[in-house]
Amino acid sequence: MRTRAAVAVEAGKPLEVMEVNLEGPKPGEVLVEIKATGICHTDEFTLSGADPEGLFPAILGHEGAGVVMEVGEGVTSVKPGDHVIPLYTPECRTCPSCLSQKTNLCTSIRATQGQGVMPDGTSRFTTLDGDPILHYMGCSTFANHTVLPEIAVAKVREDAPFDKICYIGCGVTTGIGAVINTAKVEIGAKAVVFGLGGIGLNVIQGLRLAGADMIIGVDINPDKVPMAEHFGMTHYLNPNDVDDVVAEIVNMTKTPFDQIGGADYSFDATGNVQVMRAALECTHRGWGVSVIIGVAPAGAEISTRPFQLVTGRVWKGTAFGGARGRTDVPQIVDWYMDGKIEIDPMITHTLSLDNINEGFELMHAGKSIRSVVVY
Amino acid sequence: MRTRAAVAVEAGKPLEVMEVNLEGPKPGEVLVEIKATGICHTDEFTLSGADPEGLFPAILGHEGAGVVMEVGEGVTSVKPGDHVIPLYTPECRTCPSCLSQKTNLCTSIRATQGQGVMPDGTSRFTTLDGDPILHYMGCSTFANHTVLPEIAVAKVREDAPFDKICYIGCGVTTGIGAVINTAKVEIGAKAVVFGLGGIGLNVIQGLRLAGADMIIGVDINPDKVPMAEHFGMTHYLNPNDVDDVVAEIVNMTKTPFDQIGGADYSFDATGNVQVMRAALECTHRGWGVSVIIGVAPAGAEISTRPFQLVTGRVWKGTAFGGARGRTDVPQIVDWYMDGKIEIDPMITHTLSLDNINEGFELMHAGKSIRSVVVY
Repeated sequence: MRTRAAVAVEAGKPLEVMEVNLEGPKPGEVLVEIKATGICHTDEFTLSGADPEGLFPAILGHEGAGVVMEVGEGVTSVKPGDHVIPLYTPECRTCPSCLSQKTNLCTSIRATQGQGVMPDGTSRFTTLDGDPILHYMGCSTFANHTVLPEIAVAKVREDAPFDKICYIGCGVTTGIGAVINTAKVEIGAKAVVFGLGGIGLNVIQGLRLAGADMIIGVDINPDKVPMAEHFGMTHYLNPNDVDDVVAEIVNMTKTPFDQIGGADYSFDATGNVQVMRAALECTHRGWGVSVIIGVAPAGAEISTRPFQLVTGRVWKGTAFGGARGRTDVPQIVDWYMDGKIEIDPMITHTLSLDNINEGFELMHAGKSIRSVVVY
Repeated sequence: MRTRAAVAVEAGKPLEVMEVNLEGPKPGEVLVEIKATGICHTDEFTLSGADPEGLFPAILGHEGAGVVMEVGEGVTSVKPGDHVIPLYTPECRTCPSCLSQKTNLCTSIRATQGQGVMPDGTSRFTTLDGDPILHYMGCSTFANHTVLPEIAVAKVREDAPFDKICYIGCGVTTGIGAVINTAKVEIGAKAVVFGLGGIGLNVIQGLRLAGADMIIGVDINPDKVPMAEHFGMTHYLNPNDVDDVVAEIVNMTKTPFDQIGGADYSFDATGNVQVMRAALECTHRGWGVSVIIGVAPAGAEISTRPFQLVTGRVWKGTAFGGARGRTDVPQIVDWYMDGKIEIDPMITHTLSLDNINEGFELMHAGKSIRSVVVY
């Protein structure tokens, strides 16, 4: 079939919207009509050429929502008409990683996904001239129709709006999941969130959901404060206003009883390795847990004195918020529909596919939290 | 009273054995006759001058066992005649750290302990001329008699030999506790231990106790293999025999089902920050936990790419094996007496106080696992 897609022809160039050919689903695959897709920093990271594993030409996009149109042989968990969210982190439930019950990082199709192809080693997309176009993160939601492995779609309720729940395909789940699945924040905790962008806001609402007492947001841009407060931030710290962010957070978290101070949990949503260090070091001696969410530039390294860990701090990271996509994503959609979490205020811009490059410009200019393309 | 002690007069000089004055216990303190003490690398670290927080003159030693001779006002948990192990990590059970139930790092007397004095801010030791001599790690077991806060002694059974259980005051508990309390290793795990010195051997026997399937020991000195095997090492890896220790461990831990590979748990018992990095990176994607035990040189830093954490590895550290001294140390003594763990083969040398400097020489020469001074 033919469909329309925004193609990343080469690194550093704007996407080109064009008609492309899409082959139907092979065994174990599903054809999905994408109804809406968010534009994420990870798409930008790859498009810019900064991602050393980026491949071109490819159809980017990994934060979508849509409807199953056709299923390949042997597909049993979804059927045409089902509403689904594509999963860049699949959940096969049979690989060593899934069966470990210790990680969400399913490895059953990791190799082919990284190469931009379906599990059989080929792409379903070609140009109208027949030249192959690669898939991206196993999703390629910047196409109006795409093919996905069955294990890479989460079936969700049908009354949920595509232009909002697409964000659950990455940002919402990453932020909320970092709190719930990775840090396992408990009621009454004191937490710090570095970076008040889209991920940071979702961390904040995850902390509110988890019952944190103190939710400190750190960002050099004070314009982000009202939205962060809307989502649950209780204290704001501008690094430009203090000499030492770590010392400041330690002081803010002291109590008459606990004069040691430090956050119980911290989250880096900046991708800056210096910030990641501060995030670790501002946590409480003895039990502080710091979670890295942000993607650092290629080759960048985190550092600290081992004493920070020997005295009880724990350094972790999270991918897709530690969420098992097929199991956890439908629940997060329910939370949105039940009003336990909010998404609407974070979708600041809605675009057509033809205007998708505007979404990247808004991101560069810092004007959007999330831009969503509606097909 | 007068007692004999090996005094660290200044950094970089041998200890001087001399008579010193010891004041009796003040309220909340106990006077203990030390019967035996191990000589640990931490004593050496401080004596050498490498420890930026080292203070002189002081009476070092923190790995002892002895008998309570006298108790100060208000002491209720021990009485004269009780056998005890001094605790450089006390357990007050009332400070924010103890009450958090998340850490063993009791903070009730941390400040004064770091300054080499008792909680009231003064030292109990003086030279015969009346000049003050500082305490060390709140223990000073290189004196035949010492004064300790009540919260810094663990009462243990009376049939346990002092010259063996003194090692539980630091090395044994640190190694076994890193496995049990910090990593929480489960039956069937695959683990790697970097460094086959005394701490490494105790990690190994902790892993055996925890039911680990694969216990890989890594050390550049193959002479350490027989003893490591005695304590439970199942595989030996000499870094000098392979190009890439991380890749080798990943390969060793692969199975027909799990072709990703990597250790479930790793432990650094070297204090080398490059080794700490390898220890993290050789753990399994998705769930590997790496525990830093070794003390790094002042100013040394650990580094890695954040990707290592984002893909599910966890970097932790441990002090005193995460053990709550008064609660856990008596249990470890029981394990020794019941034959669940071994100590005797690790006590390679027994010395008198007059020969204590020989213990440091044996350590430098790599000839001892543990030297113990018996009073």
